[in-house]
Amino acid sequence: MAWNFAAGPARLPDAVLAQAGALFRRSDDGACTIERPFSGPRFRAVLANARQRLAELLDLPSNYRILFMAGGAMQQFALLPMNLARAGQAVAYADSGYWSRRARQEAGWSGPLIEAARHPGATALTAPVAGKWALPADCAYCHITPNETADGIAYPALPDTGAVPLVADCTSALLLAPLAVEKFGLIYASAQKNIGPAGLCVVIVREDLLERSPVALPAVFSYRQQAEAGSCVNTPPMLALEMAALVFEWIAGQGGLPAMAAANQKKAALLYGAIDGSRGFYQAPVEAVHRSPVNVRFQLAADALTERFIEQAAAAGLQHLRGHPQVGGLRASLYNAMPLAGVAALVDFMADFARRHG
Amino acid sequence: MAWNFAAGPARLPDAVLAQAGALFRRSDDGACTIERPFSGPRFRAVLANARQRLAELLDLPSNYRILFMAGGAMQQFALLPMNLARAGQAVAYADSGYWSRRARQEAGWSGPLIEAARHPGATALTAPVAGKWALPADCAYCHITPNETADGIAYPALPDTGAVPLVADCTSALLLAPLAVEKFGLIYASAQKNIGPAGLCVVIVREDLLERSPVALPAVFSYRQQAEAGSCVNTPPMLALEMAALVFEWIAGQGGLPAMAAANQKKAALLYGAIDGSRGFYQAPVEAVHRSPVNVRFQLAADALTERFIEQAAAAGLQHLRGHPQVGGLRASLYNAMPLAGVAALVDFMADFARRHG
Repeated sequence: MAWNFAAGPARLPDAVLAQAGALFRRSDDGACTIERPFSGPRFRAVLANARQRLAELLDLPSNYRILFMAGGAMQQFALLPMNLARAGQAVAYADSGYWSRRARQEAGWSGPLIEAARHPGATALTAPVAGKWALPADCAYCHITPNETADGIAYPALPDTGAVPLVADCTSALLLAPLAVEKFGLIYASAQKNIGPAGLCVVIVREDLLERSPVALPAVFSYRQQAEAGSCVNTPPMLALEMAALVFEWIAGQGGLPAMAAANQKKAALLYGAIDGSRGFYQAPVEAVHRSPVNVRFQLAADALTERFIEQAAAAGLQHLRGHPQVGGLRASLYNAMPLAGVAALVDFMADFARRHG
Repeated sequence: MAWNFAAGPARLPDAVLAQAGALFRRSDDGACTIERPFSGPRFRAVLANARQRLAELLDLPSNYRILFMAGGAMQQFALLPMNLARAGQAVAYADSGYWSRRARQEAGWSGPLIEAARHPGATALTAPVAGKWALPADCAYCHITPNETADGIAYPALPDTGAVPLVADCTSALLLAPLAVEKFGLIYASAQKNIGPAGLCVVIVREDLLERSPVALPAVFSYRQQAEAGSCVNTPPMLALEMAALVFEWIAGQGGLPAMAAANQKKAALLYGAIDGSRGFYQAPVEAVHRSPVNVRFQLAADALTERFIEQAAAAGLQHLRGHPQVGGLRASLYNAMPLAGVAALVDFMADFARRHG
């Protein structure tokens, strides 16, 4: 038995992988989904099903639209200002770690850039304080990364940005637990953590923000035009979408987002508990209340043992535990598809490794 | 038996669909490709294999680079001027039909737009004359659509654009036959015709053009940065890529592009022959030398029978024969994965329908 703790692309549910092969079986019309016109009724049914299931999971307020777009979150980094800000308008970004800084950098915004908030301490081991953030009223949006995949940091609460729409990269957070969608202007999440295969990005946008997309924006990049076309400005990533629908169905079958939240809490508690109970052999550097529930960052007190740990873990079937290259150390990602048994196997190995090297 | 003549997303090879289910089987590391880090050695091997196989099929000159990008050809419509043209520089587009006009429109170019060439006649039933096109020397590029999927029109020869790089949307043309890549500055093709599932776009670019990508361009949109990162600026559409590699392998196994060309010629000859031999019951409106070898556009002399034809053909298992909504009439698309038997079934039905309604 091997367990894959990759930060994404990450493990998909066993049941989804077992069903996915059937997506390549042709139906009575001599075609499977990926061979059919995207404008035809059969694919439109696939799309409507995916949209409906996601809306149900999120209990989506009626004034929000779901867009299924091609590419990943990095494409959204660039599309956000193109759609939401006017030339010369200010945009705000909070700095909570590696990916929030990438989002700001790839926005390539030539207008004023406001730092909405940042780590309060000298070292980046907390998220910004989520109080009331002072922002100019004409600021186009305020961007946050509620869960920092690389740094293992999560916001314990959402900031109050007043009238400025809160925009969030929820790539590693969406579908882990119920979400108060109404607090956001826009949420986006690339598929390869909790949704399906890479190449698909979910964008959830409050309807009034759609009006901001400039008329001259190329149609595929325009939230407004994608919304008007039901995500079919051009052929969407059909196969990834069909698999995403299977994932949504699987989550619903498990009991929806409350059930995911309960299972994820258990997994995180087991792993952080093992780290905190190791008498310092393992350490979780992030301050407790800011620890990511899903990307568990840890390290060995004896740093010289890190490579040995990674090597022996891999030999024991515990894969992809190396930390993000920009952060170092170790990291275990525990998305929805990781069962408690996988975390238990990791915790057992960690105890054994500590005994042998402690 | 049902045959799917859709213009794309279109039929994939039987052998590829049969193999594709195995892409969801986990390996000894507890993961399948779409669950693994895209920066890891296993996925890099998948990517290198796809690139190598495509280069071999195309006999790619050493000064060209293959990029695998997310999204479809419409995204490239927008990215071409962003990468290849300077602010205020002229860009040229030839008008050969519906998709070449969409490419020009979605480019959203604010600088000078030159119409490089257009249909010589009053009706759009030919491609532009492919002679020497007079273009200003400082024109950034000249765009053509060698095969017009909607109009059923193909260029019988390539134009001579002198020092101005020729850029081509080869979405419905790539891999149908050997291609003189060295005549182009850049070629792009979305996957869902001859390559694999939608959500992937192949870009083949001459190395010297990479220098044109502006430094400030967001990394995912930059040909230069994608080339430098080996198409891994961010997570590429892994599943579509893995299937594309299976398609490339299948083409090689059939004898490569010369074998595809021979088979495609046979299929087109059979269908156009049946139309031309129907004593006017069926008509192929495009002038013979400009007919697309792959998107066969035809119509019934008695237009009132069109709906009955489509209905009865579908009942006989011959699917998706309706023409593009902007063009009307009928269309059968005969990409690489359509066997001669499918075309023979269509031709048989057409003869029978003509007998019954002639």
